[in-house]
Amino acid sequence: MAIIESELRHHIRVDALSTQPFPASRKIYVAGQRRDVKVALREIDLTPTSLANGQQEINEPVRVYDTSGPYTDPDYVVDVRKGLPPLRQAWIEERGDTECLVGFSSQYAQMREHNIALQALRFELQRQPRRALGERNVTQLWYARQGIITPEMEYVAIRENLALSEAQLAEAEQQQHHGMSFGASIPAQITPEFVRSEIARGRAVIPCNINHPETEPMIIGRNFRTKVNANIGNSAVTSSIEDEVEKMVWATRWGADTVMDLSTGDNIHETREWIIRNSPVPIGTVPLYQALEKCNGVAEDLTWELYRDTLIEQAEQGVDYFTIHAGVRLAHIPLTAKRLTGIVSRGGSIMAKWCLAHHQENFLYTHFEEICAIMKAYDVCFSLGDGLRPGSIADANDEAQFAELKTLGELTKIAWAHDVQTFIEGPGHVPMHMIKENMDLQLEHCQEAPFYTLGPLTTDIAPGYDHITSGIGAALIGWYGCAMLCYVTPKEHLGLPNKDDVKQGMMAYKIAAHAADLAKGHPAAQLHDNAMSKARFEFRWQDQFNLALDPDTARAYHDETMPKEGHKLAHFCSMCGPKFCSMKISQEVRDVAEAMAQKAEEFRAQGSELYHEVAND
Amino acid sequence: MAIIESELRHHIRVDALSTQPFPASRKIYVAGQRRDVKVALREIDLTPTSLANGQQEINEPVRVYDTSGPYTDPDYVVDVRKGLPPLRQAWIEERGDTECLVGFSSQYAQMREHNIALQALRFELQRQPRRALGERNVTQLWYARQGIITPEMEYVAIRENLALSEAQLAEAEQQQHHGMSFGASIPAQITPEFVRSEIARGRAVIPCNINHPETEPMIIGRNFRTKVNANIGNSAVTSSIEDEVEKMVWATRWGADTVMDLSTGDNIHETREWIIRNSPVPIGTVPLYQALEKCNGVAEDLTWELYRDTLIEQAEQGVDYFTIHAGVRLAHIPLTAKRLTGIVSRGGSIMAKWCLAHHQENFLYTHFEEICAIMKAYDVCFSLGDGLRPGSIADANDEAQFAELKTLGELTKIAWAHDVQTFIEGPGHVPMHMIKENMDLQLEHCQEAPFYTLGPLTTDIAPGYDHITSGIGAALIGWYGCAMLCYVTPKEHLGLPNKDDVKQGMMAYKIAAHAADLAKGHPAAQLHDNAMSKARFEFRWQDQFNLALDPDTARAYHDETMPKEGHKLAHFCSMCGPKFCSMKISQEVRDVAEAMAQKAEEFRAQGSELYHEVAND
Repeated sequence: MAIIESELRHHIRVDALSTQPFPASRKIYVAGQRRDVKVALREIDLTPTSLANGQQEINEPVRVYDTSGPYTDPDYVVDVRKGLPPLRQAWIEERGDTECLVGFSSQYAQMREHNIALQALRFELQRQPRRALGERNVTQLWYARQGIITPEMEYVAIRENLALSEAQLAEAEQQQHHGMSFGASIPAQITPEFVRSEIARGRAVIPCNINHPETEPMIIGRNFRTKVNANIGNSAVTSSIEDEVEKMVWATRWGADTVMDLSTGDNIHETREWIIRNSPVPIGTVPLYQALEKCNGVAEDLTWELYRDTLIEQAEQGVDYFTIHAGVRLAHIPLTAKRLTGIVSRGGSIMAKWCLAHHQENFLYTHFEEICAIMKAYDVCFSLGDGLRPGSIADANDEAQFAELKTLGELTKIAWAHDVQTFIEGPGHVPMHMIKENMDLQLEHCQEAPFYTLGPLTTDIAPGYDHITSGIGAALIGWYGCAMLCYVTPKEHLGLPNKDDVKQGMMAYKIAAHAADLAKGHPAAQLHDNAMSKARFEFRWQDQFNLALDPDTARAYHDETMPKEGHKLAHFCSMCGPKFCSMKISQEVRDVAEAMAQKAEEFRAQGSELYHEVAND
Repeated sequence: MAIIESELRHHIRVDALSTQPFPASRKIYVAGQRRDVKVALREIDLTPTSLANGQQEINEPVRVYDTSGPYTDPDYVVDVRKGLPPLRQAWIEERGDTECLVGFSSQYAQMREHNIALQALRFELQRQPRRALGERNVTQLWYARQGIITPEMEYVAIRENLALSEAQLAEAEQQQHHGMSFGASIPAQITPEFVRSEIARGRAVIPCNINHPETEPMIIGRNFRTKVNANIGNSAVTSSIEDEVEKMVWATRWGADTVMDLSTGDNIHETREWIIRNSPVPIGTVPLYQALEKCNGVAEDLTWELYRDTLIEQAEQGVDYFTIHAGVRLAHIPLTAKRLTGIVSRGGSIMAKWCLAHHQENFLYTHFEEICAIMKAYDVCFSLGDGLRPGSIADANDEAQFAELKTLGELTKIAWAHDVQTFIEGPGHVPMHMIKENMDLQLEHCQEAPFYTLGPLTTDIAPGYDHITSGIGAALIGWYGCAMLCYVTPKEHLGLPNKDDVKQGMMAYKIAAHAADLAKGHPAAQLHDNAMSKARFEFRWQDQFNLALDPDTARAYHDETMPKEGHKLAHFCSMCGPKFCSMKISQEVRDVAEAMAQKAEEFRAQGSELYHEVAND
């Protein structure tokens, strides 16, 4: 498909909707012990509460975890042609274990560089790719095991705590329900040392390729906030570079903790460069897709050498994690023959086809240690792909799926032996009552390496609403211990998501992730809910909109029935009208009830004595 | 608010969108043992599968549970001025335990009848209200306890089974996962006798007022399909009679098993008549709303006499179940004083205000047996309201909530002593890990009387998306044993739902209910999923659309990226394009894999022998 972007550098931009600050919100940067660790958070200002005595009670601003990067900072001038500032550059440099290369090591990247025809759509590279010096290991896992707390670790510790003090966290704990975490070990405060220890034992990862210094560090692990990934990417049928950059910014605005670029169309290399240079969140890819593109879609023609060159190409661009379908072993493939929907993972089916065509073991499995060597030279995380995940309720939790999961457990051990950060991908389509088995077996086989699941979808019958069918499964598995949820948009099974679909998918998954955090008991997770409910009870409409996951929609829905500005001060809403409002009646009740409660207390004290007297009679 | 509907009878209609038949679908009527029991179901026709050998394999039509009534039957001429045919009339008459009244017994109803000003918006009543003869009890519970299997019971048994034969059900059981039902007793086939026994022990209800003969019988109980209720109703701020009738038809089209008319605005009596006469599903109300309207919104002015008249007024119109907030006892009210969001139920706060103003026990509690006497004379079900349900995550599962639940348990026993069908309402806002406690305590206190919950919402932070925050909780509690889920629309907390909101709410809840049915193991629930997945695997696009919960949206989303008719025959979709399609590759893989599996089988057989030989060496 011909893309008309001959002057991409001149016209590319991110639209104003994606970059305007959130209402009543300020971007704050909280310094760590290291002064150059400045953790970006969002603070939402609230209006005061009007008390019955005519006085006002201050409502403290509410802090929220913020994935939107500099785009929502009004002081930052967005220019996607320049990319984001390289936040982590100095940290990477001071470790002194990497070197700058003169150019890309990958043959394919070099070829693209020398192709003048691509000049017009190329991101103007002003950086040199970086690689570990000699045999050095530059992964966060390696540092963690050496006892080193990196700036990245300090950053995520502060970020997970919303930069709240120990006292503030203790107070927040008083104001939230105890969680039920199924054996997770979530502390009351997340310290840099806790982060280090979790990474060291493989229970969490910080995806942060040394070639993606623009990324704001984030952590994936069952003892941290549940994270959400958004998939974007062009296909052979539709979409352009500008669209994909726009979708990436849009997804992070609505809370994407990581973004996967799953492009399979034209100019994958150049699209990726634009995305990475502008992404404040880690970027993941499935290198197999591009490798297959390089052999014109003929799976049988794939070779280890071609794939290896692709890994290096993408690692030097800055991809933070690779989905690698090394668990689709030759022996597992026959297990899928009787399935209702066979192999539905693209990567899985490509590798299955290759294995069968050559009647050989999966080359990703046989070359796994060589892949580890590449991963550790750039600190790319493994996202071990579940090529045999079920594509229907009928195929859930079958032999093929769990045989692969076991293999992923073996591969995790190998990756860890190389100090390569690793997490594991999971299903798929699974009815609710069979989800926990997935989580339990993953924890067992992969020794608590983070789990990263697509949904799962809890029924097959609602195409057009699979953000909901899967949001239910995502909330459940997040609660059970899944560390990151891969979103599903309403277009799943039907078409390529547009911007609105991306937002709908993000909203469903932010809800699922937050519901999981409340259920598992993440520190201070309920602060946000409490602030919203207080605003609701006190008819502070503006605060309700501003505190909403999606302020724009909340406000628009309210305005549909009660459009006037004065309605936003009204002590009722359109649901019941002024006479019936239960919230209003309830506030009237409260004073009387409090008096009654006091009376009852007195009565109980008194009554207790009277009873004694009677009993003694 | 003045409603301009002076000629309502002349112009009222239901729009074509709400009444067109579903694509590729036929309405079928399956006769029971009684020939006049004709159970309406929908059958979706599928296209054949093209086999590799050029032949075609027939795909049997898929039957789905159908709540849409005659509206989607192309042979039925819709005329909302006449109302629906009285399906159950003969059954009610033949029991000989009721009499026709000359007119409404309620004073208020008589007053409205005699008000000429209301003529223009009145449904032209062509029926006489009906009441039990003398002291007769006409509830399904009474019949069940006498060992009588009513036509209503036979109807729901066939309906729950999709009219599948025992052999078909056994085959379907082979093709679905075993459920996990937390102590429910779901049989492999639902027989009329099973329905009777479940009703007799209070574990299920068939809401079917003798004055609503138009309703198609349906059952609510943990051992049956999980049901969904849709709320509609005008308010003082907005909406008209025509809108509400339209919303009712629209809601049942998208799967509402019951509809609650929560009107609080003008002409509640007349609105309700229009709704009931045109509703193929049971209608529920909160009589307190209208009673309060009758005293101009002043809760303190409510009296038992006024309320009693309202119950009789609505019972004679044909309301099938009443939400009655009899559990909000005076002593419970102080327990809400320290809550973050007080009392959020409208009914609960009205009664709380009344109790406090008079410093008297709730008159619904003190007159409960008199209410039972009314209920059994018309067969109206109790929906015992949870006036103290939590309105925020913070207030979930607190003392006030569970104190009320215990009272609802006591009231259930009293209602059962009068042979009145009863179910129990539940929360509200509850984080995921605290939902099960609600279900468990309800089963314990109310001895498995059906539970009917609003959501619960699993977080407070997403106004605009509360169909999703609550859909997650609804799926969970449905799985745990909740019998009916009250939908929440995206407008919850923000405004009155319009038609699209009703549909969005319905879709989220049909998904939750079906996910729950799969998880708890309802007979043949997975048939629909399996048919969808087979169609998906075989690229039968039209079948996928037609099998979807919402065929219109599925088709529209697909057409957005691949609009041509030819694309609906394409063996790929826009997600991956033709080269990458995993489904396509997977089909190619299957043949080889099957051959391999056979080889492996042979090898195993052979190998096993070889091993013996070696071992014997």
